[in-house]
Amino acid sequence: MTEDVHDLVIAGSGIAGLSAAVYAARADLDPLLLEGDEPGGQLTLTTDVENYLGFPDGVGGMELVQRGKSQAEQFGAEFQHGRIESATLDGQPLELSLSTGDTIRTRALVVATGASARWVGAENEAELMGHGLSTCATCDGAFHRGDDVLVVGGGDSAMEEALFLAKFADSVTVVHRREELRASEIMADRVREHENVRVRWNTELEAIHGSQEEGVTGATLVSHPDGFPREKAESGTDVERETVDVGGVFYAVGHTPNTEFLDGTGVERDGEGYVRTRTDETGRPTTNTAVNGVFAAGDVADPAYRQAITAAGTGSMAALDAEQFLETLAEEAQSPVETPA
Amino acid sequence: MTEDVHDLVIAGSGIAGLSAAVYAARADLDPLLLEGDEPGGQLTLTTDVENYLGFPDGVGGMELVQRGKSQAEQFGAEFQHGRIESATLDGQPLELSLSTGDTIRTRALVVATGASARWVGAENEAELMGHGLSTCATCDGAFHRGDDVLVVGGGDSAMEEALFLAKFADSVTVVHRREELRASEIMADRVREHENVRVRWNTELEAIHGSQEEGVTGATLVSHPDGFPREKAESGTDVERETVDVGGVFYAVGHTPNTEFLDGTGVERDGEGYVRTRTDETGRPTTNTAVNGVFAAGDVADPAYRQAITAAGTGSMAALDAEQFLETLAEEAQSPVETPA
Repeated sequence: MTEDVHDLVIAGSGIAGLSAAVYAARADLDPLLLEGDEPGGQLTLTTDVENYLGFPDGVGGMELVQRGKSQAEQFGAEFQHGRIESATLDGQPLELSLSTGDTIRTRALVVATGASARWVGAENEAELMGHGLSTCATCDGAFHRGDDVLVVGGGDSAMEEALFLAKFADSVTVVHRREELRASEIMADRVREHENVRVRWNTELEAIHGSQEEGVTGATLVSHPDGFPREKAESGTDVERETVDVGGVFYAVGHTPNTEFLDGTGVERDGEGYVRTRTDETGRPTTNTAVNGVFAAGDVADPAYRQAITAAGTGSMAALDAEQFLETLAEEAQSPVETPA
Repeated sequence: MTEDVHDLVIAGSGIAGLSAAVYAARADLDPLLLEGDEPGGQLTLTTDVENYLGFPDGVGGMELVQRGKSQAEQFGAEFQHGRIESATLDGQPLELSLSTGDTIRTRALVVATGASARWVGAENEAELMGHGLSTCATCDGAFHRGDDVLVVGGGDSAMEEALFLAKFADSVTVVHRREELRASEIMADRVREHENVRVRWNTELEAIHGSQEEGVTGATLVSHPDGFPREKAESGTDVERETVDVGGVFYAVGHTPNTEFLDGTGVERDGEGYVRTRTDETGRPTTNTAVNGVFAAGDVADPAYRQAITAAGTGSMAALDAEQFLETLAEEAQSPVETPA
């Protein structure tokens, strides 16, 4: 085996990638971690994390990422800038072409590239993300007891987030740019029946008000009876504009898994692009993908739970699965089943 | 709904139960946590945890458990002594009979009762567990760089632990009471081929030497050419007795999931007693068991990975699954599909 082939490359430096790196480095696999375009991943957009087990007083999203990074480095994990642009995964070694122009060869790959929450393009969203603007009700809902909050979106997850938020918030207003929901009937019914949740149809969020210090204080909504009001406003049509007092805004317009680099490889994905992992022979979950030596962990394979702690869990599973794969590979190299002619 | 029916009971207060409690309490489900016979679970037997993401300098096993407990209490989780002795789960509400004699009724149950590593009954094992004696090579192997260590056991996991330990330890001796392994051929081969691993057949561990301060310093082994030497020694047969210098001892004689209380319920388990969880309609893992309203998290449903961080991950999944179940239940109660006659 040539020296320039890594044992293990981990794509992504969010919580899943970091947890995989800690396990892999501690097992002496010398993992190389590719940091991606958003080093630290989605958690860096969260101010306070209260539900990651082990931190009774909470921990900052960025702080948790930095603690994880220093933990991985302590055991010898290496970090490198760059993102995988394309990959050839149909044989050993796997080959990765990076955004930096480099090509990397590795025996095993953990895909932990995450999913990015979609933003809606409202004014001030970059400034207020993590300061009253959130893409995760489960994570941040409990910070809004007694507030009036907005949820932007019209699908099932928007309805779920609205219902979850209604436990804490005084009122929840779902803002949806059309006059009908994409949500399932049952979810839509639950929202309709809930006394503290209402839907504002044909309405979009144009701007969020507030500051990093005081959080979100209000929002500007635009509406038009025919729907898609921002589009109409931009093309010069008159729209109604209203400013509302709210203490929180939640985006629930979906996530996009970062898996484009897997196009053309055998790694199986679902309709939305999330990586499919396989169960073992007893039906239990693993992080194995459809391609030998390629494992997936964290949000990139999880459209359902998407929590920091679940990502940390599957990250460690991926490292353990990769370790076992590498052991088998080394074994096979020592005693080849077929002798070359 | 009567007041004496809980929304959610969590059985077990190890890492999985605590993580479920944090999520459930934070979602205002007022979870009741039954602490079980070993409050805090297996992690309380571990001195230092280095691979739980978020603690670059490591964290004590007991300390992590206490941090998790105070985190769950902060959000309102209630803790109660006792263990479930039997359960009636075939309809709402679920009914749990406790070791304390109490009966508890609940709408949802998270089974997080863990698995107990089997011990071999050697002298001093209780004192030295977590101080050089360990039941988890993945967790504690890295503390034994340069040591000579013993692994007790003859199955696949004993071979895996031995191979893993060989990365760190100078030498690994597998102690097995018979003359053949229960391990699969491939694992046995790997152990045979590894230059730093050897197997001592027909040999058992009788005593471990050392102290909590200095850790493990040695062990007394007994052997007899016909195997099962401790049994023979006890019945008066002469055996060979030898003291060896070792810096660590690893038990790999299996785990027993704590699921006896599920006998007679519809919760599906595998041959060893581990709870089987189900995949959702897209084939992704959930914590749902075969019984509605019963969820499983942590080692009780995981014979493969068994890490603190994976238990924390599935604990949070179980709370999220339970929350969704309770919402559906409340919904059904409001608009019954069938009207009673």
